[in-house]
Amino acid sequence: MLYSLQAGGKRIRPLLLFATLKAFGIKPELGVDTAAAIEMIHTYSLIHDDLPSMDDDDLRRGKPTNHKVYGEATAILAGDALLTLAFKMIGSISPDIADANVKLALINSLSEAAGAEGMVGGQVADMEGEGKKLTLKELEYIHINKTGRLLAYSVLAGAEIAQADRSVKEKLSKFAHHIGLAFQIRDDILDLEGTEEVVGKPIGSDTGNDKNTYPSLLSLDGAKKALTEHIELAKQSLTTTELDTTLLEQITDLIGLRNS
Amino acid sequence: MLYSLQAGGKRIRPLLLFATLKAFGIKPELGVDTAAAIEMIHTYSLIHDDLPSMDDDDLRRGKPTNHKVYGEATAILAGDALLTLAFKMIGSISPDIADANVKLALINSLSEAAGAEGMVGGQVADMEGEGKKLTLKELEYIHINKTGRLLAYSVLAGAEIAQADRSVKEKLSKFAHHIGLAFQIRDDILDLEGTEEVVGKPIGSDTGNDKNTYPSLLSLDGAKKALTEHIELAKQSLTTTELDTTLLEQITDLIGLRNS
Repeated sequence: MLYSLQAGGKRIRPLLLFATLKAFGIKPELGVDTAAAIEMIHTYSLIHDDLPSMDDDDLRRGKPTNHKVYGEATAILAGDALLTLAFKMIGSISPDIADANVKLALINSLSEAAGAEGMVGGQVADMEGEGKKLTLKELEYIHINKTGRLLAYSVLAGAEIAQADRSVKEKLSKFAHHIGLAFQIRDDILDLEGTEEVVGKPIGSDTGNDKNTYPSLLSLDGAKKALTEHIELAKQSLTTTELDTTLLEQITDLIGLRNS
Repeated sequence: MLYSLQAGGKRIRPLLLFATLKAFGIKPELGVDTAAAIEMIHTYSLIHDDLPSMDDDDLRRGKPTNHKVYGEATAILAGDALLTLAFKMIGSISPDIADANVKLALINSLSEAAGAEGMVGGQVADMEGEGKKLTLKELEYIHINKTGRLLAYSVLAGAEIAQADRSVKEKLSKFAHHIGLAFQIRDDILDLEGTEEVVGKPIGSDTGNDKNTYPSLLSLDGAKKALTEHIELAKQSLTTTELDTTLLEQITDLIGLRNS
């Protein structure tokens, strides 16, 4: 569990949560437990995705994947235990930070974002789509669920802790939708243009695995154009919230321009 | 997810939860969501335990195991999604049944019982012990965690819904400890004496896998004696609670005498 949690990564989900709290003028300390829970969920999903029966990846964040070090059985169980622990992380947040109903809302929406109708569902659709030619709509379904839902949760968890009203949540939800897609499009572009050294995983693996990607459906230029559009739409959603979203805008640029 | 949930099984954990509620004079309806969550956790653990990289079992409850039908990747993800859904089952119990703090207590203790310091930890210890000669203490550690913790949770969740006081919870916890061990000892005896038709999985697989079992450490007669002792101790713990434990006693006998 620790090996994969401590393997690094961009911590983009915690960043999004803390930046959302900042937009509401709330100290980042209040989001630490939830941020840790989100990283646990994200890390478990990477451990399981890398397994031989899934993407069969040997490298992650420049290091051997969990099953390469500890074997498949332990890797599966480390993922299971991280997933299990995530819910207790939120369930045992101090009452000074979040009251019982806020914690339950955080738990229920985490389960939705991570489960069969969210992240896991996206992964199933991704595997079923391998070797098939997907439509853009089908590809978006995969990425909205596989990657987007947990990124969106990071923003919405911040709004939940801040006890934001419904209309603000809806605007942030729109923002989160666009950065989720932007994140994945950038990922696909990096797989074509990045270098293994910087990205930390093998380059060109999508092409090798016969995966559907934004560049394969839209061409590389089309994918870059879609990326720019989603970044713009994300920022426009932010301006409607009347919050101090400077940091969220910076993270949005980071997502659009990142090299790893 | 449904294939394995609907594959049958004894539903001993829901039975324990409902019988505990009955001991407090509470309608079984109030335990249905929590019982479903427990079966989801139990079912996910079976799906993952049966995987080729773990116990590599082809049959479960007389039917092909999940990965035999759907493939390894889908089996892993079905387990992940069941585990994820379990927490929302409890998190979204109607407020008429359990208030927010009861739900959080149920969620946190489920995470503890099922996670790295509970069921998953027991499974890791079980795998690490394969091919080694364990002491009785080490074998008990494995079974208290791998099987016992979730059985105990089923009883304690009932006490939590009933908002039992601490001393009653401690007595029920002792009861649950003994039935957990009795359950596993009976399992080991069945692996030697049962028939595949009735048990629903291959017989003698423990011997084939070079597994540590109660009969291998204590002899078959010694294991039977230990089983009787735990059944007796479980019943004694019940008599101290001053609750109407008739049904819990019947389930205790069922655990000690079951043929599948």
